[in-house]
Amino acid sequence: MNQPPLQTAAELPQRVTAAVAAMPAAGIDALVLTPGTALRYLAGYDAMISERLTALVLPAAGEPFLLVPELERTGALDSPAVRDGLSLLTWAETEDPARLVADQLRARTRDEPRVLGVDDTMQARHLLALAAALPNARPVVAGQVLDRLRLVKDPFELDQLRTAGAAIDRVHSRMGEWLRPGRTEREVGADLAAAITGEHAEVDFVIVGSGPNGASPHHGVSDRVIEAGDPVVVDIGGILDSGYRSDCTRTYVLGEPDPAFLALYEVLQSAQQGGVAAARAGVSAGSVDDATRAPIEAAGYGEAFPHRTGHGIGLDGHEPPWILHGNDTLLEVGMAFSVEPGIYLAGRFGARIEDIVLVTEDGTEAVNTTTHDLVRLNT
Amino acid sequence: MNQPPLQTAAELPQRVTAAVAAMPAAGIDALVLTPGTALRYLAGYDAMISERLTALVLPAAGEPFLLVPELERTGALDSPAVRDGLSLLTWAETEDPARLVADQLRARTRDEPRVLGVDDTMQARHLLALAAALPNARPVVAGQVLDRLRLVKDPFELDQLRTAGAAIDRVHSRMGEWLRPGRTEREVGADLAAAITGEHAEVDFVIVGSGPNGASPHHGVSDRVIEAGDPVVVDIGGILDSGYRSDCTRTYVLGEPDPAFLALYEVLQSAQQGGVAAARAGVSAGSVDDATRAPIEAAGYGEAFPHRTGHGIGLDGHEPPWILHGNDTLLEVGMAFSVEPGIYLAGRFGARIEDIVLVTEDGTEAVNTTTHDLVRLNT
Repeated sequence: MNQPPLQTAAELPQRVTAAVAAMPAAGIDALVLTPGTALRYLAGYDAMISERLTALVLPAAGEPFLLVPELERTGALDSPAVRDGLSLLTWAETEDPARLVADQLRARTRDEPRVLGVDDTMQARHLLALAAALPNARPVVAGQVLDRLRLVKDPFELDQLRTAGAAIDRVHSRMGEWLRPGRTEREVGADLAAAITGEHAEVDFVIVGSGPNGASPHHGVSDRVIEAGDPVVVDIGGILDSGYRSDCTRTYVLGEPDPAFLALYEVLQSAQQGGVAAARAGVSAGSVDDATRAPIEAAGYGEAFPHRTGHGIGLDGHEPPWILHGNDTLLEVGMAFSVEPGIYLAGRFGARIEDIVLVTEDGTEAVNTTTHDLVRLNT
Repeated sequence: MNQPPLQTAAELPQRVTAAVAAMPAAGIDALVLTPGTALRYLAGYDAMISERLTALVLPAAGEPFLLVPELERTGALDSPAVRDGLSLLTWAETEDPARLVADQLRARTRDEPRVLGVDDTMQARHLLALAAALPNARPVVAGQVLDRLRLVKDPFELDQLRTAGAAIDRVHSRMGEWLRPGRTEREVGADLAAAITGEHAEVDFVIVGSGPNGASPHHGVSDRVIEAGDPVVVDIGGILDSGYRSDCTRTYVLGEPDPAFLALYEVLQSAQQGGVAAARAGVSAGSVDDATRAPIEAAGYGEAFPHRTGHGIGLDGHEPPWILHGNDTLLEVGMAFSVEPGIYLAGRFGARIEDIVLVTEDGTEAVNTTTHDLVRLNT
């Protein structure tokens, strides 16, 4: 069942206020946000990424506005921020929207902006057009201001992440219905996509890495036929109507695996548990990576764990904090991220265990709660 | 049924050669292409858009290379261009990939590049990191070189567009199964998504604009219950395994519509037919917009047709040529684009008719062939 759309409108004005308040310290004179999660976070507007410019413009001093193509007017009028009074401008097909942004910025602020915080995901065609229209402005990523705000989730966001976590857990708990020898990864993936859609508004991604394909961390699905004895890495995620996401990995075995796999899995399970145990308010994101990685390296699998331990999650599937060696961002209550070590033996098999955890006053709360023990299916 | 993956590998080396050959005239020293359709067009690599940099780098003089995150190595090795000998480099999680691109460019070319053609869709975070690593290079859009190549489709591409057009036509021809009074747009949209998936590899988009919602050109679906007498704009598209897309709009009525709608539809149908008739090799893209728009304006609906007449289509759903007033691009045999005028009366209803056409020696070939007459369903 789809989740009902949930109201974030009440938080939007205070998010905008916080973003504007943070701009002077970052030396940013205006933010320009194009379709993506930052626009959704600040204005509640889930706009289409397009060759046509849509931009929420927030001057550090001056009235903000939303510029959309004329043919998007109806959808933009229906967005929470515009309903709440945000100034809406539209551009016609033969106008130059970058020029309109520049003209409006000059009209609404005392000085021409010198530093422009552009959406981290703004497409180059839009960025270069804006840069040409504002030749005295230096572009920097808006994340310099927004990441800090988005790192700590508010109660609504935490609740959405819990809801998403429970939804994907229900899919994992049904894996025995789909995963069995003789089926292809693609067939299993199609069943998983349908189940994820049933529990969320839409599918984010599906990875079914069976046997040797489990050794490729970002494998999707293939036409490989799953065999008895295969370990299978299943990493799946969905998106709720509210935009918040789930992301959970479990590794299954069909019958009796290679004893070498069992040894590897034991190391991995212990490392993942240790990583979660190391995560708490006040420690650095990098230290969680180090704590997770140490037992894997000690067991001789260091080279077989080539990726960071995890990533933040919210409206984006991957967002700060990056749980990565050397990241000195200190964890705070309300942060949300994955702890997902993996061990991959090329040509043989792989394993990964991933939970999304929320930093609490007492340590962490896992939003994914299905067992970490190796699950044997259809033996 | 899904389309089988089709081989474009044979065309890739000549596309790369053509791109490199076009760079000096554009004053571009190197192209840097990130995940998206340009990368797929040149290397056959369907990479994930991500916060981690993936880049195909083509120096005007020097050996090209593909840089991917270490954990994408397996997928990149399997891409047609790498299988064909393209140099593959990977970066580890704690390395700076923009720096690696800069170092490789300096090592592979005589001079540090001064003008960098960046993927039109490159995310700002990657573009600004590259700009920082190559402070003497001025970024411009790679489209300056690639649009020209991609505008004229080769026989394989034309065949894919025909296949996609036939696939979406089969979905439109079944509309009577789904569209009836008492159902919501969302319910109809879910059925359409399933049917599109059945005829393509995946859904691109679904618009079901019933009654007044038809007056919003980019409406998606809503919970509005479709009523007897409603005109309904259905604009749908899918993506084949090869990446090529369909995009076709038909407007239906459920029973007997407002006579004012019938009058509007007659104008629209004639305008769409006139627009297609005006399209042929040697005329400008803008003139096709003008020919389509003139009868709509003459009938007093000029303000009610706020968007361009059409857009090119291929690996992108929207790409050049833009069928837009003032665009002096001359049409050539092998170009593919939509002719899709619409008339939208806010608060009442809207209508749009869209075909994808291919420019041929003799004029155009429509890949969509279901009737343009108003189809009355479930009366």
